[in-house]
Parts: sequence; structure tokens; C-alpha cells
Amino acid sequence: MNVFYLPDANDGMVSFPEEESRHCVKVLRMQAGDRFCVTDGKGSLYDAELVEAHPKRAVACLSNKRAGYDNKTFRLEIAIAPTKLNERTEWFLEKATEIGIDKVQLFASCHSERRVANVERFRKVMIAAMKQSIKSRLPEIEDVTDFNKMVQQPFDGQKFIAWIDDDVTDLLCDKYEKGQNALVLIGPEGDFSPEEVQLAKDNGFVPVSLGEARLRTETAAVVACHTVQLINQMRK
Amino acid sequence: MNVFYLPDANDGMVSFPEEESRHCVKVLRMQAGDRFCVTDGKGSLYDAELVEAHPKRAVACLSNKRAGYDNKTFRLEIAIAPTKLNERTEWFLEKATEIGIDKVQLFASCHSERRVANVERFRKVMIAAMKQSIKSRLPEIEDVTDFNKMVQQPFDGQKFIAWIDDDVTDLLCDKYEKGQNALVLIGPEGDFSPEEVQLAKDNGFVPVSLGEARLRTETAAVVACHTVQLINQMRK
Repeated sequence: MNVFYLPDANDGMVSFPEEESRHCVKVLRMQAGDRFCVTDGKGSLYDAELVEAHPKRAVACLSNKRAGYDNKTFRLEIAIAPTKLNERTEWFLEKATEIGIDKVQLFASCHSERRVANVERFRKVMIAAMKQSIKSRLPEIEDVTDFNKMVQQPFDGQKFIAWIDDDVTDLLCDKYEKGQNALVLIGPEGDFSPEEVQLAKDNGFVPVSLGEARLRTETAAVVACHTVQLINQMRK
Repeated sequence: MNVFYLPDANDGMVSFPEEESRHCVKVLRMQAGDRFCVTDGKGSLYDAELVEAHPKRAVACLSNKRAGYDNKTFRLEIAIAPTKLNERTEWFLEKATEIGIDKVQLFASCHSERRVANVERFRKVMIAAMKQSIKSRLPEIEDVTDFNKMVQQPFDGQKFIAWIDDDVTDLLCDKYEKGQNALVLIGPEGDFSPEEVQLAKDNGFVPVSLGEARLRTETAAVVACHTVQLINQMRK
């Protein structure tokens, strides 16, 4: 099933922007009458039929607006420092979008390997993953913020900080309560400084471990994301 | 901490093979007296001190043999069809090694996108991940087997088959019992054929879902791996 992303989707006739038109008509060679699916990235999916197969201004008729299956009762945010290798951050963004996440916060901390990020490129990775996994919501992502500023922002839910430390024995999976909103800070490749950990604690972040395994930054972020999703799925 | 992999490690003096010698002396520029860690990939870690910094036949003294933290009471095996893009399978192998897995079975099924695999290359990815995450066990991996043959092999533990099907409502996280050995078959990119699902069921595999999200093959495999590990970690 082909899925297109049109942020301004609505029931009725819609024009595609140039890039999506090209992809639809030139790459996928769709013709008038072909059917596909449209997501607005804000929680809705539509059935769609191509009306005009124009390579720059394709037109489709949208109908059957419905809520996607990915409308959750809780909110999940992960804060991560961009990794030295961009492909590792991109891999996390793809997997988190598939598994389910509401927002990714990028931060620069004391030992960050990378302080700038190409957020537009990161957003494209998430759009592709949203389309591929037929999700109705595009996770939010914003430009890199300073760690100290980020931890002082308000968040309505449980706040955790995960990093490698032998003294931290509480597990995220034991501390997170099903149905609650969660924000999890993931230690950067150079790990947090003691001052950063203290500042997070002072701002209500609970230190947690993701288990015995020593995980790379992007693996830890995916594991944290899946932990929260799994606890919400479990019936027993 | 630098970790080297020496399958024949033992307390006392050991010679490094040529490739590891080169890496140690030429790439890392280690000198006699430098200390590092050695894993035998079979469950033991050693402290090591470089005695002779020879670029082709380095010699080290090993001591303090101990069990790694990754010695589990249960066994976890994942069976997966190699993905069309090798990098996606390699990504799964890296992440599964970090998170914890005992064996990866590669299979070719009816709708497999790829029927051959470079197992030596895959093993190298796992060795690198084992060293990076300071694990003491190298997961097993064997060449691609035929699906029909694979599902008929004996396995002492819970057996699951996970694929996309609206009729499958039982979740792996609800069906898997803590402490049990588990083998999970992951649907290939073209999914299983109905006959393959039936054959697996006839051989005792329980159909399970990994949740509502539509996951790529390699994401599903990592999610299944983490699900089993997480259930074994949870204290409450």
C-alpha cells in the first residue's frame, strides 16, 4: 500500500506539492483512478484516488477520514544527543517512528560528540518511516537545545534519566507506570557529566538503568522507546 | 576499554593472530605494558597486559578469568530471513548482540528476498558488537537453512512465530514466560506463506503478534529480542 504525506489533507479534492507529485506520477507511475492512502501526520488517515496524474501538480480525491491505529493515551518523548555518526541517529529515528514515539528532543551536553544537526534531514527519515509503517502521526523533532535549558522545561508526566552508572539499580521497566506520559533522557556517547546528572535530578528526573547490557546511545534510545511501548501493550 | 576476541583464551601467555596483532599494535598503537580486556566469546572475560608489541605476533599475559555479566539462565534464539538490503540484517545482528541473544538462525522461505548470506561478514559484525559492548559470549550464527527444515528441528523451550496477521491477537510479551528458553521466527519481508505458517504451527510454534505497529523485518527481530530480555529483567 502506497502512503503519501499531506500535512493539509482533508476530505475532498487536494493538490499534491511538486515533490510528492513527481514521486507519485514519475517514480511510482501512478495513473488517474489508482488508489492509495494519505496521512496528515496529525492522527488521521484517508483513502485516496488519483484524479489528475500531473507530474508537478497531481490532484487526488480524499475520503473516509479516520483515526490511525497509532493514537495512544500516553505521550512518549526521548531526548538524545546527536551521535558522532549521523546514520546512527537516523537509524534511531526510523526505528522509534516505527515502534511509536511522539517527540524527539535533540540536546547538546558537556561531552556531546556533535552539537549541530540537520533537522530537516532527520525529519525526512521520520516521514519515510511514518509512510512505510502506515502511521497517522509524524513525531515532532526540533533543533538541538542546550542540555541545561532542556531539563528545566516543564513536562507533564514521568521524567527519567538513563546513563551508565553502577550505582543506578532501578530499571526503567520497573519505574515507568503504564498509561503515564514519559520523557527519557539518554546518555550521550561521552556520557553525562556529574553536574548534568545532578541538574536533571534537581529538576525531577529519576535515574534509571536500561538493564545490564552496555548499549550504544542509539540502541539505548530504541530500547527505552520499546520499553515504554511494551509496558503499555502488556495485558497480564 | 579495548576488548580483544581470542576464542582460545586461557590464563597465562597467549599469542594474538595476525589480524588482531595488527589492530592492537598498528591501529591502536599499544605498547608493552598496556592493559586491556579479552573475551573468549564462550562466557569468560580476562584482564590482559601486552608483553610483546609485535605487529604480526603480539603476545599478552592473561589473568583474572571471570564469567561475563551476560551469562543468562535462559536461551534466546531468533530466526530471520536475510533482508534484501544486507545492512538491515547487519543492523539487527549488531543490536541483538548488544541487547543479548544466543543464536541467530537464517532461513530462506517461500517469499524470501534473499536466499544467500555472507555469514562470515555477519559474524564479524557480531564480533565487533560483542567487543564494543564488552560481552563475554559471541552469539552463534549459521548459514541459511530452508524454512521447512528449520521448523522441524528440535528446540527445548517456547517456540513462537511472529508475522503480520489481523487474526493473531496474542502478544509475545503475554505468551512468553520469564526464565524459559525462547525461539522466535520473524516473518520475512514478503511474509510467510499460509503453508509455512501451518507447518510451523504443526511443529509447535505459537502464533504471536509484536503489537499494533507495522514493523520492518529487522525492527521486528530487535523488538522480539528486547521483549524476551525485558521480561526477564522486570522485577515487579
